[in-house]
Amino acid sequence: MTSDLRWPGDKSAAAAFTFDVDAESAVLWGNDAVAARMSVMSHQAYGPLVGLPRILELLDTHQIPATFFVPGHTAHRYPAAVRRIVEAGHEIAHHGYLHEQPTALTLAQEIEALDRGLQALAEVAGVRPVGYRAPMWDLSWRTPELLVERGFLYDSSLMDADHPYELAVGDGSVVEIPIQWALDDWEQYCYLPDIAGSGLIESPRKARELWQLEFDALRAAGACWVLTNHPFLSGRASRAAQLGDLMRYVVGHDDVWTTNLGAIAEHVRTLHLPPRTITRPGPA
Amino acid sequence: MTSDLRWPGDKSAAAAFTFDVDAESAVLWGNDAVAARMSVMSHQAYGPLVGLPRILELLDTHQIPATFFVPGHTAHRYPAAVRRIVEAGHEIAHHGYLHEQPTALTLAQEIEALDRGLQALAEVAGVRPVGYRAPMWDLSWRTPELLVERGFLYDSSLMDADHPYELAVGDGSVVEIPIQWALDDWEQYCYLPDIAGSGLIESPRKARELWQLEFDALRAAGACWVLTNHPFLSGRASRAAQLGDLMRYVVGHDDVWTTNLGAIAEHVRTLHLPPRTITRPGPA
Amino acid sequence: MTSDLRWPGDKSAAAAFTFDVDAESAVLWGNDAVAARMSVMSHQAYGPLVGLPRILELLDTHQIPATFFVPGHTAHRYPAAVRRIVEAGHEIAHHGYLHEQPTALTLAQEIEALDRGLQALAEVAGVRPVGYRAPMWDLSWRTPELLVERGFLYDSSLMDADHPYELAVGDGSVVEIPIQWALDDWEQYCYLPDIAGSGLIESPRKARELWQLEFDALRAAGACWVLTNHPFLSGRASRAAQLGDLMRYVVGHDDVWTTNLGAIAEHVRTLHLPPRTITRPGPA
Amino acid sequence: MTSDLRWPGDKSAAAAFTFDVDAESAVLWGNDAVAARMSVMSHQAYGPLVGLPRILELLDTHQIPATFFVPGHTAHRYPAAVRRIVEAGHEIAHHGYLHEQPTALTLAQEIEALDRGLQALAEVAGVRPVGYRAPMWDLSWRTPELLVERGFLYDSSLMDADHPYELAVGDGSVVEIPIQWALDDWEQYCYLPDIAGSGLIESPRKARELWQLEFDALRAAGACWVLTNHPFLSGRASRAAQLGDLMRYVVGHDDVWTTNLGAIAEHVRTLHLPPRTITRPGPA
Repeated sequence: MTSDLRWPGDKSAAAAFTFDVDAESAVLWGNDAVAARMSVMSHQAYGPLVGLPRILELLDTHQIPATFFVPGHTAHRYPAAVRRIVEAGHEIAHHGYLHEQPTALTLAQEIEALDRGLQALAEVAGVRPVGYRAPMWDLSWRTPELLVERGFLYDSSLMDADHPYELAVGDGSVVEIPIQWALDDWEQYCYLPDIAGSGLIESPRKARELWQLEFDALRAAGACWVLTNHPFLSGRASRAAQLGDLMRYVVGHDDVWTTNLGAIAEHVRTLHLPPRTITRPGPA
Repeated sequence: MTSDLRWPGDKSAAAAFTFDVDAESAVLWGNDAVAARMSVMSHQAYGPLVGLPRILELLDTHQIPATFFVPGHTAHRYPAAVRRIVEAGHEIAHHGYLHEQPTALTLAQEIEALDRGLQALAEVAGVRPVGYRAPMWDLSWRTPELLVERGFLYDSSLMDADHPYELAVGDGSVVEIPIQWALDDWEQYCYLPDIAGSGLIESPRKARELWQLEFDALRAAGACWVLTNHPFLSGRASRAAQLGDLMRYVVGHDDVWTTNLGAIAEHVRTLHLPPRTITRPGPA
Repeated sequence: MTSDLRWPGDKSAAAAFTFDVDAESAVLWGNDAVAARMSVMSHQAYGPLVGLPRILELLDTHQIPATFFVPGHTAHRYPAAVRRIVEAGHEIAHHGYLHEQPTALTLAQEIEALDRGLQALAEVAGVRPVGYRAPMWDLSWRTPELLVERGFLYDSSLMDADHPYELAVGDGSVVEIPIQWALDDWEQYCYLPDIAGSGLIESPRKARELWQLEFDALRAAGACWVLTNHPFLSGRASRAAQLGDLMRYVVGHDDVWTTNLGAIAEHVRTLHLPPRTITRPGPA
Repeated sequence: MTSDLRWPGDKSAAAAFTFDVDAESAVLWGNDAVAARMSVMSHQAYGPLVGLPRILELLDTHQIPATFFVPGHTAHRYPAAVRRIVEAGHEIAHHGYLHEQPTALTLAQEIEALDRGLQALAEVAGVRPVGYRAPMWDLSWRTPELLVERGFLYDSSLMDADHPYELAVGDGSVVEIPIQWALDDWEQYCYLPDIAGSGLIESPRKARELWQLEFDALRAAGACWVLTNHPFLSGRASRAAQLGDLMRYVVGHDDVWTTNLGAIAEHVRTLHLPPRTITRPGPA
């Protein structure tokens, strides 16, 4: 699929550093009992307590505007941390309330998760987000309409393109900024016995190689590279060191527009691309 | 097991790039509920929408005739994409209708999957395939006879040889072009939470090293190297970049016949090799 | 989270080599039937029989005081091995009796595990430990209070910081020396079919790279690097060789205080840091 | 644990290349239904049909006497292949009849598996093996006595030492030649969906690095390096190429005695080492 998308000015590709600030919510949803495990809770708390400040410093060093997807639960539990993101000038976007997987919810539950999330971000950070990313990157077929109803400009949860596009929703559309599993840190680093992970932990050098190769290739394709990191994972010292090196590498390419997803979505909206319809597969 | 197989002209080994164009069918079969997961569907749609055009371009650049195993469901859902494969001069082969695992089917179901697949490829692409590969590389002991009854020339689903051979089926035979798990991209790249994958994602450099080492070694053995890639996996930008480099490497060897499986099977058939019988293990 | 912690003298960071001497207990707890598997038992026995002496030699070569977390069961089954640790001048700390996972226990069971562990270490090694680490790194919210009641100085089971801190417990506190999964050898090396492990075994070179990168980064952060190895895993010959090289690397940094956890905890206690309260997440 | 073991002549360490010729038995035992999967059966058949001849050639090139553990089922299904091992001068040893996991058997079943295995090797290859290795490396506490009763000289299934030893059995003993999971190819290469494997497949370069590092380290320790490969895995072309390079590396060390396990066991027996008793852990 070629894309008619053009980037602003003399830019020929785009890059975004995004962070899912899941903290405890990523493991609590659907698993109340895990709250009894103090070490597991502390593993998740590392994100807002240590990983996030370190990442904010890296972004400051490299002068990169980033997008942080913040579940409402994280905002309520770590309000100061979330406000620091805003104060540093970064974008806050929506990531559910308790990191609820949309496809496991009823319509009423999905609406509740969206609205509680909006309320928490408003209360804590005074923010009305324009962007959304489905927890577990698991959008339901209902979600796009719910987003349009709430005035969201963009979603970042689908995986069928290298370039952003307008996703048709009824008579309107929402900008879709695609992601992919290979540009996520979960598969490389997450180890939570009985909860998540392959059981293996990769070296930060390997993760960085993987992400950089994809940057090189998407840049050559004039596409949009969207990296997703979790502060409780990539905020660890040596992973952050590699991430910082990668930031230096990315911003060292003048032909690439390194910015946050909100800015990318606004740009896409100005292009008036014809919306694209995706059809749910029926029974075979 | 030595092989009496000789390659055409001055060629001393063979190589084939093959692609299983599974798209949604790879996850839908046996799991209707997965259709409700829009992100998962989009992950699979990347194959025909983005991965496939990119791969066709690579094959054009390196002037390699390839084989595409296309489930009927993919043909019905992405007819234009499948017709582009034909127009580019590549071989279309059979891969079930909804990527049904033959050993999980009754005889009637297996027949239905074969015939629906044939019908879809005829309708959409005007093609009557001569080749077959079992979805999940899981041939049943009934499949070879069903293939011979339908006039198939070859199968590519078994793993007991480095060289193609004639597999005895009743009084006749079908050409078998063996494959192996280490020459597949699924194990290296596939990550689909709750559905498939080891949980880890490898770097394209590692996958390429693995495949190239096996090319070198099978070439030295005068054998047949058959790589299998999935457009929804290896069509990603940096993986395709490595795949392109590997294509350059492979076609750079003049002593190796780089072609599609149909051409290999036709050559094998001209050799009149004595068919080989494989006996199903009985109770021990 | 910045830390007010200062290191002694001219030291700007700390490093500790710690060993969980689990032996059979790591697999027996909650799984009596595994005792019937002689090979599995021998796999665990390698720790005290071969791995431990080899590690003691490495520590002697590099003149590093280390901490050994010894389950009571290991002390009773391998008393001579445990006494050798004491004789070599290293610290013995508490690691449950049969490697019981605290969050799976009732309060009474957790108390029993603690007290049986204390008794075993007293009987076998004449030691009253000041440090504790939860088996499976799975502290319960009750554990800190139980530790304070028994006069423990420190715990090393939480993961929410790069620096040690005072963890508030009622009116008092316990020193917490944080750990992390990436600085553990289990994820890299453990393979016990049907029992534990990802199914993969990594090269010692990869594990060493991972650990050394984190050392470099935590050193730069003025933090505390705590490596955890299991003698039944890292006591294997080539893994121990890499571990020895890593020891050489670590002690080659004069600005880093390489010592055992007991010494680190004592130092932290002298700083009178304000204790930190961690709140268990409630229902969302 | 230091060892009093001395190697013959001027040798200061030992190395053995061993092969578990499991073929179909490795997956059939306990899982009759798998026989219906023709591709899976062909994956296993690759071992005796292609992998084994290639490995025999490598051993011939490097003039290494090796040990092949052959399940009775393999002998009955591939008699010619098994006889070729004997004709090439290698040792045949016992590996169950249908690769039965000893700890899952009753005493009567374990006896039956042993005796059927002996009978098959006698019938097919005219061999009475002196060595045994438990399928799945899962010795039961009864097995050593059963081996002594049948006149076996050695077992190679335990993991608690780097050096061979005499394992006490009643008033007598059996020589134990220890193995370890890191010196096995299963964890690196095995991929059998729904049956076995981590889901990942490693590069032969990584496996070779791992095995060679352990060779270097065990050599330095004056110990016994025992590599275990499966022809259906390591008989693949590029893996065999790396294995051949490793053979060259190992035999290039004159101070290392590279031989088969039978020769090692005979040597150990001449040393009259005091037998060692291993006690089964009781309830804690």
